[in-house]
Amino acid sequence: MAGTAKTLFRVVTEPCPQTSNKVTVVGTGQVGMATVFSLLSQGVSNDVCLIDMMADKLQGELMDLQHGSLFLKNPKITASKDYRISAGSKLCIVTAGVRQQEGESRLNLVQRNTDVFKHIIPSLVQYSPNTIIVIVSNPCDILTYVAWKLSGLPVCKVLGSGTNLDSSRFRFLISQKLGCSTSSVHGWIIGEHGDSSVPVWSGVNVAGVRLKDISPKMGTDDDPENWKSIHKDVIQSAYEIIKLKGFTNWAIGLSAAALANTILSNQHNVHAVSVMVKGVHNLEYEVFLSLPAVLGSNGVEKIVLQKLAPNERCSLKFSAALMAEIQGGLKM
Amino acid sequence: MAGTAKTLFRVVTEPCPQTSNKVTVVGTGQVGMATVFSLLSQGVSNDVCLIDMMADKLQGELMDLQHGSLFLKNPKITASKDYRISAGSKLCIVTAGVRQQEGESRLNLVQRNTDVFKHIIPSLVQYSPNTIIVIVSNPCDILTYVAWKLSGLPVCKVLGSGTNLDSSRFRFLISQKLGCSTSSVHGWIIGEHGDSSVPVWSGVNVAGVRLKDISPKMGTDDDPENWKSIHKDVIQSAYEIIKLKGFTNWAIGLSAAALANTILSNQHNVHAVSVMVKGVHNLEYEVFLSLPAVLGSNGVEKIVLQKLAPNERCSLKFSAALMAEIQGGLKM
Amino acid sequence: MAGTAKTLFRVVTEPCPQTSNKVTVVGTGQVGMATVFSLLSQGVSNDVCLIDMMADKLQGELMDLQHGSLFLKNPKITASKDYRISAGSKLCIVTAGVRQQEGESRLNLVQRNTDVFKHIIPSLVQYSPNTIIVIVSNPCDILTYVAWKLSGLPVCKVLGSGTNLDSSRFRFLISQKLGCSTSSVHGWIIGEHGDSSVPVWSGVNVAGVRLKDISPKMGTDDDPENWKSIHKDVIQSAYEIIKLKGFTNWAIGLSAAALANTILSNQHNVHAVSVMVKGVHNLEYEVFLSLPAVLGSNGVEKIVLQKLAPNERCSLKFSAALMAEIQGGLKM
Amino acid sequence: MAGTAKTLFRVVTEPCPQTSNKVTVVGTGQVGMATVFSLLSQGVSNDVCLIDMMADKLQGELMDLQHGSLFLKNPKITASKDYRISAGSKLCIVTAGVRQQEGESRLNLVQRNTDVFKHIIPSLVQYSPNTIIVIVSNPCDILTYVAWKLSGLPVCKVLGSGTNLDSSRFRFLISQKLGCSTSSVHGWIIGEHGDSSVPVWSGVNVAGVRLKDISPKMGTDDDPENWKSIHKDVIQSAYEIIKLKGFTNWAIGLSAAALANTILSNQHNVHAVSVMVKGVHNLEYEVFLSLPAVLGSNGVEKIVLQKLAPNERCSLKFSAALMAEIQGGLKM
Repeated sequence: MAGTAKTLFRVVTEPCPQTSNKVTVVGTGQVGMATVFSLLSQGVSNDVCLIDMMADKLQGELMDLQHGSLFLKNPKITASKDYRISAGSKLCIVTAGVRQQEGESRLNLVQRNTDVFKHIIPSLVQYSPNTIIVIVSNPCDILTYVAWKLSGLPVCKVLGSGTNLDSSRFRFLISQKLGCSTSSVHGWIIGEHGDSSVPVWSGVNVAGVRLKDISPKMGTDDDPENWKSIHKDVIQSAYEIIKLKGFTNWAIGLSAAALANTILSNQHNVHAVSVMVKGVHNLEYEVFLSLPAVLGSNGVEKIVLQKLAPNERCSLKFSAALMAEIQGGLKM
Repeated sequence: MAGTAKTLFRVVTEPCPQTSNKVTVVGTGQVGMATVFSLLSQGVSNDVCLIDMMADKLQGELMDLQHGSLFLKNPKITASKDYRISAGSKLCIVTAGVRQQEGESRLNLVQRNTDVFKHIIPSLVQYSPNTIIVIVSNPCDILTYVAWKLSGLPVCKVLGSGTNLDSSRFRFLISQKLGCSTSSVHGWIIGEHGDSSVPVWSGVNVAGVRLKDISPKMGTDDDPENWKSIHKDVIQSAYEIIKLKGFTNWAIGLSAAALANTILSNQHNVHAVSVMVKGVHNLEYEVFLSLPAVLGSNGVEKIVLQKLAPNERCSLKFSAALMAEIQGGLKM
Repeated sequence: MAGTAKTLFRVVTEPCPQTSNKVTVVGTGQVGMATVFSLLSQGVSNDVCLIDMMADKLQGELMDLQHGSLFLKNPKITASKDYRISAGSKLCIVTAGVRQQEGESRLNLVQRNTDVFKHIIPSLVQYSPNTIIVIVSNPCDILTYVAWKLSGLPVCKVLGSGTNLDSSRFRFLISQKLGCSTSSVHGWIIGEHGDSSVPVWSGVNVAGVRLKDISPKMGTDDDPENWKSIHKDVIQSAYEIIKLKGFTNWAIGLSAAALANTILSNQHNVHAVSVMVKGVHNLEYEVFLSLPAVLGSNGVEKIVLQKLAPNERCSLKFSAALMAEIQGGLKM
Repeated sequence: MAGTAKTLFRVVTEPCPQTSNKVTVVGTGQVGMATVFSLLSQGVSNDVCLIDMMADKLQGELMDLQHGSLFLKNPKITASKDYRISAGSKLCIVTAGVRQQEGESRLNLVQRNTDVFKHIIPSLVQYSPNTIIVIVSNPCDILTYVAWKLSGLPVCKVLGSGTNLDSSRFRFLISQKLGCSTSSVHGWIIGEHGDSSVPVWSGVNVAGVRLKDISPKMGTDDDPENWKSIHKDVIQSAYEIIKLKGFTNWAIGLSAAALANTILSNQHNVHAVSVMVKGVHNLEYEVFLSLPAVLGSNGVEKIVLQKLAPNERCSLKFSAALMAEIQGGLKM
């Protein structure tokens, strides 16, 4: 303690080195940083740890965030290449990963990211053996499986951000068409995060009024209002935004922070997240797909069993089989 | 689980029974309830436990709060006469106590409250051995001492809300006279919570400008602007409000929640709280008085050593001696 | 400006006397104060005005709230018996009213409250001609009609808090039975705020899964799980809490603040509130009953037309006729 | 309104097209977007308008933010190249501007940015004649002068974010050296935002204890604890972070949002911002420099007159003369 501090203070006890709501975010790219900033600016956690391989970038982000402490809640923010700094995390959010190269097969991409995860996941678990892990990296569902396998954690402790974001896009787009708030429109996109996701039209409602009861053709090809195009827009969203601004970050960062908020404050909210689906909806493979699930401080507490239409079940089954196949080809 | 729930959900794991930020509030009178409501409505804790002897009142408050869950953050709220329900609290806030009867001596009042605390404090520590305890009950400073002694906890773990509220009243009243926000006026009231509190005029400042440098007579009897009357108004505040509305609750509830916020989120903010002062400012007795202190998840981390004027030191010394005397007469 | 302030500051311009989100709350009883405190502690408005007839109580509450400024967002809080102080309010929330006396007929009670409103409502509109008015006083639906008539405002600008609270109680109780968060359970109670309210069982859902699809007998008398008792508990809630603690305040205060939040921040959220129902659900009388409605800064934007079961429509019709009859007997 | 919406809703009135807290942010670079995201994620405004020249980038950012609506407060977010969309803004924050080219003189840079402002500022004022304008673009102080001149607004309505960020960095760095929270350390950096900023060491305090009273050499060259290096670190911060991560965004975005929060909610907080200083501290030129100032919904209400040391006054005078000279060379 500096001389001035010695004269200013009488020490009673040492400060506590960490809070009980510590969150580690792995990866400080656009998605990782939007996640970190959402966690801090929304007050979800006051103890955030950043991990990345690029020491310069990491140090720059750390300093920039710390300089904003006065406008946050005096958070503790730490950063390092060394996973020891993540010790005692209640939640770890993984946003790191390599990107698809031109002409690269999906299996190859997954394998490369699996190799990256072989370092990340065991390191996280080593220093925070009771942590919950949320995978944001893509392809989200398979990487959540990979993370689960590599972690040795119980299945409730590992989940993927999955279609939590797709569902929020879906609800926003419907709300614009109807003229009410996003949070007053309820609707769920499940299954694989990405092109083969499944919108559950039967559940779309406002104040408990099923829109499909009003417009039975909703979601089908011969719907004069063409609601189906909203699902297409959801799928296209990421591509479109990447084309326009180069990457997506804000919505996915907020989505991850919302999951963190439910988990850390033990709220038992239902979110569409990637969970192990074996035995649900007659799915037979040990794969991860997004379904609505109740989350809390123990992780995934319950999976909501929606009544799915035959084509929706079929899509899930197809996605599950595809995942199983890719997983089968992985070297873990 | 009800039949509908069984069909609706597939269980993955049991919900976590409590969060890591559990707060127990003992006493559900006006002060206790304003504290509980501040904790919940400001999102300071999402896991609040109420304890009182009056089962009906307790149940009524519990139901009323739970019915507001939708407008809060889906908190866990529990209530019981039985301290087992407080298990695992990170922080316990004590607002319970008997009131002064007409003609009752102060010592007698303190003794009666000590007898109440003999039941409360050991029960809290029994079920939450690592808890921090904040005493709001009056007379705050002596009861904080009593709680410390009864708890067996280290001195950093037991504190009184003390002059945190007096300081906030002081800052509000100065801000009104100056014409800027309360939070941009800095000023500290220390010492005994109540009639013999001490305003540290030398520290009153706006943007680092000491008002005493502008008006050297500030706080003295021959100050033409009569700033001293603001301290009188602070002291009179509680009496005045009790005369007008029967009790005080909002500001003291917010004050307690502010302390809880600093402690639970490990913010290391400085608050004027009642701490054990032996060895500080040459005080020799093992008594509690309010001084600015850095608080965090370990409790009282540091005491700020202000430069006090001779009359300020004198007031503290007098208060300390008085406390020591009363404490000496207590049957613990 | 005091001498010290003159030396401390150079004035550039006068402070703005009010914000654009000013809210006036009429009545500082338990409900009014819980509303005011919710508005301030949740940051819904930073400019709150209190009006009551009891000058002492009013002054006591004002001082107590102001002393908490430091722990809020430096709000402007004002109070007076004189309605001039409410000038420029964007929203006025009325919680004032007389209570039912033993043996008093409902019509008599309504008439007495109408007489009270004859002073309140025109005074509010006089000083805030563009305000939105939310009626919390009971009996809520008729008094909202009375306020509308007395105000001369368009029908979108006057609403009652109605079954917003009943719906939140309903959702909490269902959530407890299911084991997930209150906000993840969706369900609506409509109609008359009070004993003859109508739970719309067909709309109750979690993640778009209609519970009635799982348990078709839900809400009926021969349901083995007896979900109907939850509606009974909702109705009994107020009576029960009043029996236990003497009054209800927290949940109704939060409910009113939630409506204020949607309105002031123009969120277009759907709430169950008391609106003029003529022409909706084939109702023929100019009466107010609660229905889900989209609210925003213009007040009631849209009413949600739920598909109601025959008995639900019947209940609404019955309530409407009863209201019309009582309204017909009122001296306005 | 789509067919489904027509069946779902009965329209009562049109939605209100904007809130009373609309904020326009000009420029969607790193600083502009961090500002926008801070405004939304911290709930400072629920009605944010983005303006930029790059239509693609603008559209991408708009979509990305809108997709996060569910995790915010259902905000209204709009974006356009056309300033008409900014109509009715209460506050406009300008982050746009060109960057210094290699070898470019400062005057040349300022002239190029002045030319950019010739389009921006009058357009903002045209559609929001009562707006307050906050300049974040660099060089901040001169551009605030330029904006003021171009706007035709009263001097209280135009300010620069100035050393609000420098002061927050200063406080963070001191807090780290002392071991308490950033918000419990008080200290002000004034003058020119950038290399010639002035730390007012005499005002640095914790709980009203002036650190300079403890360590009289604080801030001087022969201080054994070398506190002066903290000011050097503040100045170096931006350069350092730009070197490490390529740009700064988080802290400056939070700083701008904090100013917006004080202004929109009329809080009268003191911030160090760039204000017109003629007549203050004997400064004679019509230039803008940062001084602590009370801000509210009318803009700059009061300037705090700190007691400055001779070398501090000298620095301010030098900066003011330099600004005046550059301003003299500008073609407006």
